[in-house]
Amino acid sequence: MTAAEASVNDEESAIRKRASAPPIEDGALDSLLLAPNPEDPDLAQTIEITNERGQTERVRAVREKPLTIFLNDAEIVTAMTVGDFPEMLALGYLVNQGMLPRNARIEGIDYDDELGVAVVRTPDETDFEHKLKKKTLTSGCAQGTIFGDLMEQLEGVWLPDDGPKLPISTLTRLLRRLASVPSLYLEAGGIHGCALAEEDRPLIYMEDVGRHNAVDKIAGVMAQEGVDPAGKIFYTTGRLTSEMVIKTVTMGLPILVSRSGFSAWGVELARQSNLTLIGRAKGRRLTVLSGGQRLLFDTAEDTGT
Amino acid sequence: MTAAEASVNDEESAIRKRASAPPIEDGALDSLLLAPNPEDPDLAQTIEITNERGQTERVRAVREKPLTIFLNDAEIVTAMTVGDFPEMLALGYLVNQGMLPRNARIEGIDYDDELGVAVVRTPDETDFEHKLKKKTLTSGCAQGTIFGDLMEQLEGVWLPDDGPKLPISTLTRLLRRLASVPSLYLEAGGIHGCALAEEDRPLIYMEDVGRHNAVDKIAGVMAQEGVDPAGKIFYTTGRLTSEMVIKTVTMGLPILVSRSGFSAWGVELARQSNLTLIGRAKGRRLTVLSGGQRLLFDTAEDTGT
Repeated sequence: MTAAEASVNDEESAIRKRASAPPIEDGALDSLLLAPNPEDPDLAQTIEITNERGQTERVRAVREKPLTIFLNDAEIVTAMTVGDFPEMLALGYLVNQGMLPRNARIEGIDYDDELGVAVVRTPDETDFEHKLKKKTLTSGCAQGTIFGDLMEQLEGVWLPDDGPKLPISTLTRLLRRLASVPSLYLEAGGIHGCALAEEDRPLIYMEDVGRHNAVDKIAGVMAQEGVDPAGKIFYTTGRLTSEMVIKTVTMGLPILVSRSGFSAWGVELARQSNLTLIGRAKGRRLTVLSGGQRLLFDTAEDTGT
Repeated sequence: MTAAEASVNDEESAIRKRASAPPIEDGALDSLLLAPNPEDPDLAQTIEITNERGQTERVRAVREKPLTIFLNDAEIVTAMTVGDFPEMLALGYLVNQGMLPRNARIEGIDYDDELGVAVVRTPDETDFEHKLKKKTLTSGCAQGTIFGDLMEQLEGVWLPDDGPKLPISTLTRLLRRLASVPSLYLEAGGIHGCALAEEDRPLIYMEDVGRHNAVDKIAGVMAQEGVDPAGKIFYTTGRLTSEMVIKTVTMGLPILVSRSGFSAWGVELARQSNLTLIGRAKGRRLTVLSGGQRLLFDTAEDTGT
């Protein structure tokens, strides 16, 4: 491999086989309550391709389809998604956009597979729908407004420093376990994953073609099940940009970990809200960008072999 | 490195130094008309971090800020962007969303750095603004509509098979050159890149924290300069999802190459519109997903060492 080739790093893997899932100690994934089903033919399919020598091969490719999310009778957005857990994606999207409070009373979530529509129903019209009706008359599209509201949500938020410190060795054990979760990523590549965890135990693992969808699915499960975010760890394969930090902070989660890079503003927002932000977490290496007081650097003497 | 660690591939690089830019033959980048300036302090800054052993280090991080795009007096969207070429991003976004025709008469593009606003002005009110005013009264937000319109744009499009075939050896030479373009990616990581090229010559290279922004910047330059897409190659570091394929096809570009993975629907849409789609292109390896008739497999006898 030349230096030029080595310098080309990829967003995700070269062709991956499920066989490449690393071995893991027995019971390490017993804590996992919810995860994708890589065997589901609705989520990935086999396609024929041609390699660089002109030979035909068969590879797996993730599926992707539109899901239109409604809040009561208001059409909110059409997201491209791999398609699993559509109700959780719809609920989590609305909660993470600040259109529904985290503890909102939900009457039900209707999903129509053929139409690709998920409707989240509340007992009464929400503040957001009211706001939307007013604002769209003048501003055309609510996206700018939504972004402004997101930033407002962050103002004055300071995540508390309670609970025991998280040892770096516990975190690296968690990363090893996450890498071994049977996933569409290992099956087909081309997909982002994220997880909710406690210490070294993965609790929920979600994947999607859109990295924010995976986050929203976890937010949906947390909202529906009333999961307490205190002391939990949030993991994403995606980059640590401002949007990811804002989502994590508004979800009330104190620790956000990614194996990818970060933006300066993502780091800035994390510091302003006392979020523990860790990037480039791979194997035993990681970069603590903010909130190091929640960590115990117990591997400092480790030779790193 | 354990198998578990090896299986964790990253969206982008571990900490990168500019020194890792590979050596390149003299004049190989002479064709490059427009590219990011990695030295610009507005685009990346130095921050202090803590490594896994609790030691302080200094690393580079890309900046990220909001840009609100207006079409005349209609506020369209707020995008998070690294911040260079805001006028091109605004114009390209509007063109790629189908809100402006590619050959639209533009009166001017005003950019206000302090407000973070770019306004694209046309001589008259556009069809899109008219449509927007009508639709938002009933549907709340135009996003769903915009997506529908994008799919409509693709209907019946069949990219022509004109011009000479592209040898695989030419393409791999292009990939080597692209990897050596001085970039924020090499400087700080955490950013997506894309390029417009002809044979083995990079013409425009753009980067952004949002991968679609980088594409839109190139579309903006193409619209402003009236660049003919015929025979051109489009390269992205991002995954080949339906949205990326739709953008490339509507831009009229016949060949789309990525070093990342793909979704089944992205491949399906490429085949429907006769786009040459190539994924997982790294070093000498690549996966031809669609449109192999535009390629000359001249490296089939190569031993690949």
